[in-house]
Amino acid sequence: MSTGGYTMTIRCEIVKQAGMLGKVTTAIDTAHGEIGGVDLVQGDSETAVRDITVMVQNAEHGNQVAASIAALDGVTVLHAADLVFQAHQGGKIAIQSRIPLRNRADLSVAYTPGVARVCTAIAEDPARVYELTIKRNSVAVVTDGSAVLGLGNLGAEASLPVMEGKAMLFKEFANIDAYPIAIRSQDPQTIIETVEQIAAGFGGINLEDIAAPKCFEIEEHLKRTLGIPVMHDDQHGTAVVTMAALWNALALVGKRMQDIRVVVNGVGAAGTAIIHSLLDADVGEIIACDSRGIIHRSDPTLNSIKQHIASQTNGDNLRGGLDKAMRGADVFIGVSVANILTPAMIQSMGTEPIVFAMANPTPEGSPEMLGQYARVVATGRSDYPNQINNVLAFPGIFRGALDAQAREITPGMRLAAAKAIATTIPPDAVSADYIVPSVFNRDVVPRVAAAVAEAAIAEGVIREDALALAV
Amino acid sequence: MSTGGYTMTIRCEIVKQAGMLGKVTTAIDTAHGEIGGVDLVQGDSETAVRDITVMVQNAEHGNQVAASIAALDGVTVLHAADLVFQAHQGGKIAIQSRIPLRNRADLSVAYTPGVARVCTAIAEDPARVYELTIKRNSVAVVTDGSAVLGLGNLGAEASLPVMEGKAMLFKEFANIDAYPIAIRSQDPQTIIETVEQIAAGFGGINLEDIAAPKCFEIEEHLKRTLGIPVMHDDQHGTAVVTMAALWNALALVGKRMQDIRVVVNGVGAAGTAIIHSLLDADVGEIIACDSRGIIHRSDPTLNSIKQHIASQTNGDNLRGGLDKAMRGADVFIGVSVANILTPAMIQSMGTEPIVFAMANPTPEGSPEMLGQYARVVATGRSDYPNQINNVLAFPGIFRGALDAQAREITPGMRLAAAKAIATTIPPDAVSADYIVPSVFNRDVVPRVAAAVAEAAIAEGVIREDALALAV
Repeated sequence: MSTGGYTMTIRCEIVKQAGMLGKVTTAIDTAHGEIGGVDLVQGDSETAVRDITVMVQNAEHGNQVAASIAALDGVTVLHAADLVFQAHQGGKIAIQSRIPLRNRADLSVAYTPGVARVCTAIAEDPARVYELTIKRNSVAVVTDGSAVLGLGNLGAEASLPVMEGKAMLFKEFANIDAYPIAIRSQDPQTIIETVEQIAAGFGGINLEDIAAPKCFEIEEHLKRTLGIPVMHDDQHGTAVVTMAALWNALALVGKRMQDIRVVVNGVGAAGTAIIHSLLDADVGEIIACDSRGIIHRSDPTLNSIKQHIASQTNGDNLRGGLDKAMRGADVFIGVSVANILTPAMIQSMGTEPIVFAMANPTPEGSPEMLGQYARVVATGRSDYPNQINNVLAFPGIFRGALDAQAREITPGMRLAAAKAIATTIPPDAVSADYIVPSVFNRDVVPRVAAAVAEAAIAEGVIREDALALAV
Repeated sequence: MSTGGYTMTIRCEIVKQAGMLGKVTTAIDTAHGEIGGVDLVQGDSETAVRDITVMVQNAEHGNQVAASIAALDGVTVLHAADLVFQAHQGGKIAIQSRIPLRNRADLSVAYTPGVARVCTAIAEDPARVYELTIKRNSVAVVTDGSAVLGLGNLGAEASLPVMEGKAMLFKEFANIDAYPIAIRSQDPQTIIETVEQIAAGFGGINLEDIAAPKCFEIEEHLKRTLGIPVMHDDQHGTAVVTMAALWNALALVGKRMQDIRVVVNGVGAAGTAIIHSLLDADVGEIIACDSRGIIHRSDPTLNSIKQHIASQTNGDNLRGGLDKAMRGADVFIGVSVANILTPAMIQSMGTEPIVFAMANPTPEGSPEMLGQYARVVATGRSDYPNQINNVLAFPGIFRGALDAQAREITPGMRLAAAKAIATTIPPDAVSADYIVPSVFNRDVVPRVAAAVAEAAIAEGVIREDALALAV
């Protein structure tokens, strides 16, 4: 059962009488709720107040479960709340002091008068901002809220829960201190100027949930002007994990990057970045499709980004729909919409087809159907094998870039990250159901960080004034 | 001894022999270092490695102390470090997750897919951003680095240690999550636009260390446009604590606000705000002075801010220097420069003169000299009685404004804060050496917060869509 993260906490007062709790749990079972836990809140000789955590399908189902409990004699439902909303009360992150502030001596170290000498030291040697402030471990998670998850343009305020969640992931997976910056304007130039104005305090910029095509322009511009790592995760995080999955899938079917033909369906932020990564990895042939079918260089109506894609893909200048693109292809990579793949399309592919159906929340084909016809299937979902999840990539990429004091995140650093993710799974353990490691595999981030830092040093993109920092 | 926050940690290896540690501590005493603590780092049968914390006057004095230890037979100094710089390694604040992220279920609550419903809820009802995100407890500490402490224009990066320290103070004293935003541009319009662009994620804006006169324009503009509390602490924090001190000082000498004549020397950010607070409190007469002497309305060379001050002060149109202003005055408030007061000036004041000499780090007159001639003396220094310290004001003011979901911080709210600070000291405990409470008096912030929230509600400046929030 996929609950969509919908978990209710139902608080009820239950008369103390033999078998009463059993009646409650039976009522929940009967209403098809799945009990996650039962806690005693308070009790006296007559009644007990309990919090029962129940996984349900959606709000209506939750109400049905609560109603079935309330219908019991001797039970009163005091409160039924959605756990996701409870968890979000007051937000998900907080600020913490790293040194104590208990007394006047502490104050004189952390604040005046001691701090004045630290400010002066940075003013005299600007590189010391990396040593003496939060900058070296701080990443701004920047959005304009124009493409929030699969929900679309919700604006700055409504995007904050995602940005806070992202900050949590940075902290938990890579011990990076990330802070949400939700920008009001959706104009690319204003977004660029705002990030440039506030970058002093940050060691890196993670762009998030910014719509295509402006995301390309914003990232490219900030990479040029800021001199600190900048990455639009919706583009490159997805591309890195896709490449990792592709390496292991190809090993499984015994094909080489140079020899394969790959269909990429969807040329938004993620699709465009995936195409660039495939090109960087010397893939044999790429066919890109959008909602109008195969993108080809003789189409005069293409915008400049699609023109650029057309110039680098589809060497045979194929024209037609997705079905035509799929014929003989070795790999399908979908970052598009639900259920556009048919059994016939997969059957028309080459031997041992590889299908990455990453549309969210509903893949390009049901995993069950795809599994019947393809050798290897991956999706964006956590309830099937082979989840292509950005969490495998961005924490380690930024950790490595910050550790190396890199000025930017290069294609080479991203390919190194993809290889590190892929090789986290020992070659003999790779199987059709196991081409990417779990997001909770604690080896992933240190491996990715080390590979990214090494690539940054090898490419010579570390800061010229990089300090040997005390860690 | 005022150490200016200069504390050394001296790591030394000491031969194990009777009386050796005594020789080390004697050497430190002889070199006029003050021992703060001695810790054992590691030891074997032959030697012990110890960290000795020593308060010294400055770097040179620290080197002398270390050299006097190194001169001892049987002792090797391994390392001597400045504790302030040690404490600043990697910065002073970090991000913390408020809910767990241990497994896939946690991930589905804090991030996808659960978070999508939270985003949607805010998009449908924007007021819920105060319930479901960090906004309601988050304050941006915004600077352009143009007036950092008493150090001047150090720019964005070098101001960060102060902003981080401020964030620590917000956390420790008021449990507010504050984050440093150091803006690159020093142009008022750019600063305004940048803050407007990033305000969505913040419940309040604390402007910090921005030079006068642009600080006035920036604060006024943002107060009008943002609809969340905005306060330039260098102006109002200082003014609020000054008013608190003045109330208690006046009670001590038996004078009333309406009857006194106050000289304010220095009309930068703090001086201007103090003058406005004195006007709000119906002080009898104010004489403002700058480096050119008494500000008077018949001076055609005044800038617009000083013209405004002139129009509201100095009703008799006095002209002349500070010495002339001081004759017969009841109160001197200095936010200017070191050592400009003479004994003769204080002697020329009215009965039982009150002198607040708040220039940093060196007051307008030495506290010893002032104490000889004035009834009540206050300074900005922690090593004398009556420290006028913003830490008494801003944490409680923002706590109260956020708790009440105020749209702004009004003069009435600031006066309420000043009264709450003053009355933290019971009337019969007020003395010439005790007109303001200690910054470590834990009653101050809750009292200020309650008074500010009450004033906000009484004035009707709370948000119209304010939610009843679960705390």
